[in-house]
Amino acid sequence: MVSVAIMGHGVVGSGVAEILTTHKKKLFASIGEEVYIKHILDLREFPDSPLADRFTKNFDDILNDVEVEVVAEVMGGINPAYDYTKKLLKAGKSVVTSNKELVAAKGAELLAIAKENNANFLFEASVGGGIPIIRPMHQCLVANNVKEVAGILNGTTNFILTKMIAEGMDFDEALKLAQDLGFAERNPEADVEGHDACRKICILASLAFGKHVYPDNVHTEGITKITLEDVKYAASFKSVIKLIGKVKVLDNGKMDILVAPMLISKKSQLANIDYEFNGIMVRGDCTGDVVFYGKGAGKLPTASAVVADIIDCCKHLKTRKYLYWADGTSENILPYNESETAVYLRLSAVDRETVINKAKEIFGEVTVITYEGANPNEVAVATPVMTIQDVESKVALLENDNINVLSKIRIGDL
Amino acid sequence: MVSVAIMGHGVVGSGVAEILTTHKKKLFASIGEEVYIKHILDLREFPDSPLADRFTKNFDDILNDVEVEVVAEVMGGINPAYDYTKKLLKAGKSVVTSNKELVAAKGAELLAIAKENNANFLFEASVGGGIPIIRPMHQCLVANNVKEVAGILNGTTNFILTKMIAEGMDFDEALKLAQDLGFAERNPEADVEGHDACRKICILASLAFGKHVYPDNVHTEGITKITLEDVKYAASFKSVIKLIGKVKVLDNGKMDILVAPMLISKKSQLANIDYEFNGIMVRGDCTGDVVFYGKGAGKLPTASAVVADIIDCCKHLKTRKYLYWADGTSENILPYNESETAVYLRLSAVDRETVINKAKEIFGEVTVITYEGANPNEVAVATPVMTIQDVESKVALLENDNINVLSKIRIGDL
Repeated sequence: MVSVAIMGHGVVGSGVAEILTTHKKKLFASIGEEVYIKHILDLREFPDSPLADRFTKNFDDILNDVEVEVVAEVMGGINPAYDYTKKLLKAGKSVVTSNKELVAAKGAELLAIAKENNANFLFEASVGGGIPIIRPMHQCLVANNVKEVAGILNGTTNFILTKMIAEGMDFDEALKLAQDLGFAERNPEADVEGHDACRKICILASLAFGKHVYPDNVHTEGITKITLEDVKYAASFKSVIKLIGKVKVLDNGKMDILVAPMLISKKSQLANIDYEFNGIMVRGDCTGDVVFYGKGAGKLPTASAVVADIIDCCKHLKTRKYLYWADGTSENILPYNESETAVYLRLSAVDRETVINKAKEIFGEVTVITYEGANPNEVAVATPVMTIQDVESKVALLENDNINVLSKIRIGDL
Repeated sequence: MVSVAIMGHGVVGSGVAEILTTHKKKLFASIGEEVYIKHILDLREFPDSPLADRFTKNFDDILNDVEVEVVAEVMGGINPAYDYTKKLLKAGKSVVTSNKELVAAKGAELLAIAKENNANFLFEASVGGGIPIIRPMHQCLVANNVKEVAGILNGTTNFILTKMIAEGMDFDEALKLAQDLGFAERNPEADVEGHDACRKICILASLAFGKHVYPDNVHTEGITKITLEDVKYAASFKSVIKLIGKVKVLDNGKMDILVAPMLISKKSQLANIDYEFNGIMVRGDCTGDVVFYGKGAGKLPTASAVVADIIDCCKHLKTRKYLYWADGTSENILPYNESETAVYLRLSAVDRETVINKAKEIFGEVTVITYEGANPNEVAVATPVMTIQDVESKVALLENDNINVLSKIRIGDL
């Protein structure tokens, strides 16, 4: 019998308890021992739970219980999750977590503490919910040099964008629907401003390239400025707009990493990932592109990934998994200004001809994009590939000529 | 240092040697030891190879070398791969393989021998080439009851069908192109008749449901009868035709397993998997649908999966992985006649009205499908869901009325 504890009894935590109970036989068969939930930490009371006798409000009950070998941290947030996780790892207990905020902020440190104490720190559920991605990237792609990772990493924003694209809803309406359906929080900032996607691409970048990437060092744009006009121009450019988290390692060893909405060709595998689904593309030098697709959030998908990590820890109680990355600094990151991309621009135009000529004069060979019913006082163009710095200086030239830039969105090469 | 041997120096085998050489540093970092290629078994000579001194024509050089702990079997075919693998496992050496024919025919027996001898038998590369699927299914989805697995498991047939769908090539022309590009063998039977896909779905079914499924017990249809007309009817039914390997576990515990071309809704994630790519959908009770996508064949993708297995064996030299399934019989399989599906039928029709009425009389509510330019002497319909037995008896009634069934293709519910 392996005794485990669960810290947090919210959506994911209650899902973990549920799966450990309903899938008991299957899990037993997998490791040859029973997984026993000994403690559940939550400040709330759950007198009607069949596990009511296991609840505690005191973290020390878990920390000081020598029988507890694996702990699932599913509280979310940095504090007190960080402090608890450190203490548990130092006590030689393995910790698994779904907490992307914690892993993105403190992953390198916690992995180092785990290593020192011959314990495991696993976090399959922190990216892509129920989609297996951390373990396949780490294990199956061990024989590859990963060149690039790009993905739709946030289901809430993908749901909103899909509603805009497929049904012509505007952003506010789609956000409200997402909130009503429980896909978006009442305070949707972490999702719609791209912070959640940023934490996830930081975790994937750290794993792929072996150096911790901190969210503060990553350029992050959300989707709040995307309009229905942009969606329609994108469609006539045979593209869809998706919020993409992306990291690519350059020849100089620096990571070109960012989170931003992008026009993605409809032919891309990522273009067909719709609604609340997530998809992650891993480009290896041997495998080529591999894509993982599924539900990126939700109680049981996420909880099943946490349970898979618990089982992995149970199988490796005496041996360490080799999951590890070193600390990193902003030195490893390409300054955003030097990042290269083509850009879609939507411009105000009293006279279309003049604006198109001016855009060509400034940007070189641009592709003019239009759709039936487009505003005659606007011009949309796709620029050639250039650095963000060049984009910004050329945009300033347009604005000097009293041409307003109404939208400016990267064109992805995925 | 861990000494390994490679049996076979063909496409995949030379790829394994190449990756073990070019990715030496990365692999060292992963396991903390060097992976040393001590022997390569091949009857041919490779005097110009940088590894020329490691070649042997004598299997016993590997079997009797106590230093060799892991062997990659990449010869293909049942004999002598089966005999060699058995002997190696009995000698306590771990074996990894890309040989789907071997795993589909002898998996249960070889896994049992591995277990008895405290060795590992791994075969990530046998399904989906470079796509991680065996390990994610086994490990990450351990907390799920898998309900269904369905996939595009053969790149050659998918390439041919995509050329037919996207470019209007006919089957023979697309097959020839596939052969010219090296995607299809000179003797394409194993691919186009569905045998290769059958071996792969047998492996996935055995893994998902814990009982070995033998290819001989699985209904297998290929794509040689698919016409351009079928492709066009499918398009106007908002579908594409794909060769699907599929297994679903029924409430009575039997597996509904088959390989057949199917009309798949364009909305399905599998519909957008084109050309030589593979895609595999795993439906779990907790995760929902998870899809894995990538190159299903090719030298380096497949070899990178073999190397990942080698590394996994190196990490688990003293411990066994828990990958295992029991033997199985045809008793575990639903007789094909009892399998349920809707069907697309293309019928000869001197008089369309009469044939449509007759089809409705026999099948109940059918959907008539047509496209601009369709042959006026044909009728295409989609039937309701029924057993294959019912389909066959109703088709016989049509034929009794001198209506010829020109095509009969399952409609997938994926």
